[in-house]
Amino acid sequence: MRIEDEFSEIAKNLKASEIRELLKLTQQPDIISFAGGLPNPESFPVDTIKKIIDSLLETEGARILQYGSTEGVNSFRDALSEMMRNKYGVSVTKDNILVTAGSQQALYLLAKIFINPGDKVIIEAPTYIGILTAFQSYKPEYKEIEMDDDGMRTDLLEETLRSMRKEGDKPKMIYTIPTFQNPAGVTMSLDRRKHLIELSEDYDVLIVEDDPYGELRYSGEPLPLLKSLDRNHNVIYLGTFSKILSPGFRMAHLIAHEEIIHKAVLAKQGIDLCTNTVGQFVAREYISRGYLENHIPKIIELYKRKRDLMLDMLEDHFPDGVKWTKPDGGMFLWVTLPDGMDAEKMFHRAIQHKVAYVIGSAFFPRRNHKNTMRLNFTYPTDEQIKVGVVRLSKVIREELP
Amino acid sequence: MRIEDEFSEIAKNLKASEIRELLKLTQQPDIISFAGGLPNPESFPVDTIKKIIDSLLETEGARILQYGSTEGVNSFRDALSEMMRNKYGVSVTKDNILVTAGSQQALYLLAKIFINPGDKVIIEAPTYIGILTAFQSYKPEYKEIEMDDDGMRTDLLEETLRSMRKEGDKPKMIYTIPTFQNPAGVTMSLDRRKHLIELSEDYDVLIVEDDPYGELRYSGEPLPLLKSLDRNHNVIYLGTFSKILSPGFRMAHLIAHEEIIHKAVLAKQGIDLCTNTVGQFVAREYISRGYLENHIPKIIELYKRKRDLMLDMLEDHFPDGVKWTKPDGGMFLWVTLPDGMDAEKMFHRAIQHKVAYVIGSAFFPRRNHKNTMRLNFTYPTDEQIKVGVVRLSKVIREELP
Repeated sequence: MRIEDEFSEIAKNLKASEIRELLKLTQQPDIISFAGGLPNPESFPVDTIKKIIDSLLETEGARILQYGSTEGVNSFRDALSEMMRNKYGVSVTKDNILVTAGSQQALYLLAKIFINPGDKVIIEAPTYIGILTAFQSYKPEYKEIEMDDDGMRTDLLEETLRSMRKEGDKPKMIYTIPTFQNPAGVTMSLDRRKHLIELSEDYDVLIVEDDPYGELRYSGEPLPLLKSLDRNHNVIYLGTFSKILSPGFRMAHLIAHEEIIHKAVLAKQGIDLCTNTVGQFVAREYISRGYLENHIPKIIELYKRKRDLMLDMLEDHFPDGVKWTKPDGGMFLWVTLPDGMDAEKMFHRAIQHKVAYVIGSAFFPRRNHKNTMRLNFTYPTDEQIKVGVVRLSKVIREELP
Repeated sequence: MRIEDEFSEIAKNLKASEIRELLKLTQQPDIISFAGGLPNPESFPVDTIKKIIDSLLETEGARILQYGSTEGVNSFRDALSEMMRNKYGVSVTKDNILVTAGSQQALYLLAKIFINPGDKVIIEAPTYIGILTAFQSYKPEYKEIEMDDDGMRTDLLEETLRSMRKEGDKPKMIYTIPTFQNPAGVTMSLDRRKHLIELSEDYDVLIVEDDPYGELRYSGEPLPLLKSLDRNHNVIYLGTFSKILSPGFRMAHLIAHEEIIHKAVLAKQGIDLCTNTVGQFVAREYISRGYLENHIPKIIELYKRKRDLMLDMLEDHFPDGVKWTKPDGGMFLWVTLPDGMDAEKMFHRAIQHKVAYVIGSAFFPRRNHKNTMRLNFTYPTDEQIKVGVVRLSKVIREELP
């Protein structure tokens, strides 16, 4: 049998991305990689998790090991809605919450229930790679909105919405990571948050607020969630425990209007029936016993040091003409090389010098902006940050025009 | 915003099934339900799981709590391939294995990578409901093959394949649960297994062998997996830990030709990136430390007693003219009421009498065969089996023509 003849049209269009191939090169043991997107294992509350699981297995073994409903474990969704109310001022109940296998699944479900081929989706430029893979088989058309140090340029967004309206068109949704954006590391200002919400009301467009890093703030003042400014159920909020507990449980949650939850539940039934229950019970205890609030300062201490170290090293070593963002939180910063330089071509020289990054063009649907790259500062050791930045500086200098 | 206007065409076709609505009625606390598909919590090796997790968190906390690769944890896939070789005589390596979030996800991935709208899929009649929900949005056309006490009638399958060939057509795949079928409880004989493999070779058709219950044999002799009889990579094998460890981890695996694994990995990247790693490490230890082999006899002892009890009760109480299958294993048996009776209409009377089952028509894509129902014997207590069968007998007698 020629298996490739059997594949569906969708499968024929699924191709391994070049970025993934590049990432494989970064996994050699002697390479210092700023390419990853992983939390640091030092940030995992291992002892707390052990304590929680031991007590859950003793008292609720039969329930935590059983199938759960597609929506998610009720007591976990209750705990989540309480957290959303008390901590963020977002008034929701468990009926507004669907537990998902990571935010990636939440994005996939949103694509499945909202996107017809050719539908317009507004994204930040650059944007999170995961939305491009999640949405791929539903074939949207992307409209990109530039960012600056205050996040998405909502003035440009307004222009786009206005000109679409003139053509009798409107986007299906606006996708944003407003806080400590991946990959850019920038944060949307309060004024722009308000403006974005107004625009979503005026133009009747859904907003997807992806918030994996919001808890990881190392400087500056906390800003309200878009979801907390939303009076018309226009905002779909995605949260996750991957960066504040551990990615190993694949625990994330989609918070939205009940009608959206209802459709997403039907879609999820076909995809995996339910999210693993063990992780849901662990996450429930993690928030309801107050462990989360105790633990976050420890993660912040660890990551703030690494962010500061990387910023200092870049300041000291990167050549003139190279620019980078100064994130107040999260896991990434964004480097812009002088015009005409190509981070993709430079990548192979970097590998020769035993240092790695993600080429910035990977974060644009059209793979342009070749002179950019993303650096992660949470996973490498302090020593690796020091040595790696020196190596990378050397690579850039060699490639400078 | 009118949210329903925003939904995609796919979402508009996703409707809550009537069966799910019926199942909700079975969840009242005083109803004895044979409708579930759940393993009995008494079958969960709670102490073993606690021991495994404690030692994993002590020695490998950083790894079991981190993201894993889309394919699955390497050491787990190595352990799985060793198990497949030693236990079932199936010669595979980790490169033939994709870890999935339950078998439901494996089915969804197969639909996504193989099914174009209108493609023919051969199923057993009745078949597992999950394949109908997993495949729904890819719009296959089903060809149903009858079963008898020896499983799928491969003579009828051959007729179907021959007549399709005459029309220049062929099915995309043949989906079967050969061992302790859900919902029918029957097992495909060795002769038919061999015949099925021959047909898949002669007609160049993939077989999907779904095997969630294979380890749960209470009588009769073990039979070889279709996968072990397969010389041409025609068989895609689905295994799961939901019935032999716990459903709470959502651990299943898809075993197939490397090309199929490669495409399924690309599809899974968009859907959830990776399966939770905690469950993968737990399952790895469960098989490699020999816990699985020690534990299976305990599950069998529990379920054999329940099967025997239910068969005895049916024999003693069901009226003449009602037939049922006598499963050698698994979790279900299949009841056929006299012609003209309607298990769907009878369902509401059953609820009044505080007993529940799944209407058999749910397991047919065209919702026919109204005079059938599925009973689960693994989840209810012994007392519930006794009382519930008496109640159900009364309901049937009242409805008899």
